[in-house]
Amino acid sequence: MAFSYSCGFQTPKISFKCNPLVYCGRRFNSGPVYACIKNMDQEPKFKLLLDSVKWDEKGLAVAIAQDVDTGAVLMQGFANKDALLKTISSRKATFFSRSRSTLWTKGETSSNFINVCDVYLDCDRDSLIYLGTPDGPTCHTGEETCYFVSADDVLNSSETEEKKKVLTTLYALESTIYGRKEEKASPNGKPSWTKRLLLDDNLLCSKIREEADELCRTLEENEDTARTASEMADVMYHALVLLAKRGVKVKDVMEVLRHRFRQSGIEEKQSRQG
Amino acid sequence: MAFSYSCGFQTPKISFKCNPLVYCGRRFNSGPVYACIKNMDQEPKFKLLLDSVKWDEKGLAVAIAQDVDTGAVLMQGFANKDALLKTISSRKATFFSRSRSTLWTKGETSSNFINVCDVYLDCDRDSLIYLGTPDGPTCHTGEETCYFVSADDVLNSSETEEKKKVLTTLYALESTIYGRKEEKASPNGKPSWTKRLLLDDNLLCSKIREEADELCRTLEENEDTARTASEMADVMYHALVLLAKRGVKVKDVMEVLRHRFRQSGIEEKQSRQG
Repeated sequence: MAFSYSCGFQTPKISFKCNPLVYCGRRFNSGPVYACIKNMDQEPKFKLLLDSVKWDEKGLAVAIAQDVDTGAVLMQGFANKDALLKTISSRKATFFSRSRSTLWTKGETSSNFINVCDVYLDCDRDSLIYLGTPDGPTCHTGEETCYFVSADDVLNSSETEEKKKVLTTLYALESTIYGRKEEKASPNGKPSWTKRLLLDDNLLCSKIREEADELCRTLEENEDTARTASEMADVMYHALVLLAKRGVKVKDVMEVLRHRFRQSGIEEKQSRQG
Repeated sequence: MAFSYSCGFQTPKISFKCNPLVYCGRRFNSGPVYACIKNMDQEPKFKLLLDSVKWDEKGLAVAIAQDVDTGAVLMQGFANKDALLKTISSRKATFFSRSRSTLWTKGETSSNFINVCDVYLDCDRDSLIYLGTPDGPTCHTGEETCYFVSADDVLNSSETEEKKKVLTTLYALESTIYGRKEEKASPNGKPSWTKRLLLDDNLLCSKIREEADELCRTLEENEDTARTASEMADVMYHALVLLAKRGVKVKDVMEVLRHRFRQSGIEEKQSRQG
């Protein structure tokens, strides 16, 4: 099996009748691009794709933009045929604005584009995922994602400033650890374990080495797989504390992994080293 | 700051006039539950929540089900007021079927429920995320997520059986490593680095210990933060190879982390050990 990573459309192998540079550019001139899209939809491959989508009675499908590195759902809009074609040709997440009845590329005002590496259709073919990397915060409020209001907070009339954001497990853990980092040490209270790790580099590093060793021993001593998962969780947690100590985000690590895949592959890199 | 994790609705503090067990049960009797929902929407808290959603002209909002552990977008449907209330009260992802004009709880036929731990609204209040854990494959085809058709595959008429699925960076890496595990060793070709690691426990464990040590040294020797991200990527990659060797999935590790948060907190566990 070829060592492949799915991020990155293959360049569409069609002969554009308009300047192909327009398709790769960071910004569009909406007139000419739109004209090109009009031609694109006659290309057999694109026609096949467009015909495979079940557009609703208004010619729309739900389009969900997701961060390829973190998995965060960044925003949701609707796409029509032109929005999908423009997303594929420009690699910038583009939607159809129902209120303004126009195409709308996320970032055309803020420059916070979402760089789409692939588009997925669901089993019903009426819902799309734009998988990509955001140039900056996606939400117009400055939040990373548009989903930052928890129904639980609304129900419990939570008036604290620290709202619950939509965070999946790894990023919820990261957020908690960063929260600990910001805490002032209490002169009387016993500091939390995370705080102790954050304050004591020797303790933190000895724990990381210890947990990595314990993870290895689950293999070497053929322990049960639940033990492997548990030790890996220990490694992750302690390593995340080190990342927080250094101000590195999990997202940064995922970006490194993604670039290694795409550029030369971890294996090539490692085989050169090994 | 309290050590908190956002997964898990606070129990709604309202007095139900119907059997509250119905709300926590694994399966619903749609009659009585629906009757209860009719009452729920008059409770001020729920009324506030329902009024805060911008329902479209058909009384619907987009509802996206996302795996709290992996971040995978599992499926997308639409919710009306009753679907949202039923999701919150039952903690099972529930949608409004536009074709059948009825409420529909994912899993009511297959038993593959999506156990919702929180619901998020977007900044426009017209889109919802149901964040939760699936009991099994979400898609009726048996796939984990409904998004398994890549536009790139459609455009390139890819006829290989191995389709690209929607996978974010960490899970794409995991998938590649598991792919290597399944590969037969070529008698002539040089095995890939991943394959070498998979075949040689001593090599794999020595690399994990070495990479953990290098991660620690970025802190101890105050190396730049890019180095920390890079070394963490090395730790992750090699640890993922060990997980694959043992048949453990990243999802299993995330589940461990989530349970630790929710049950006693990593810190409590660690402080008892420490």
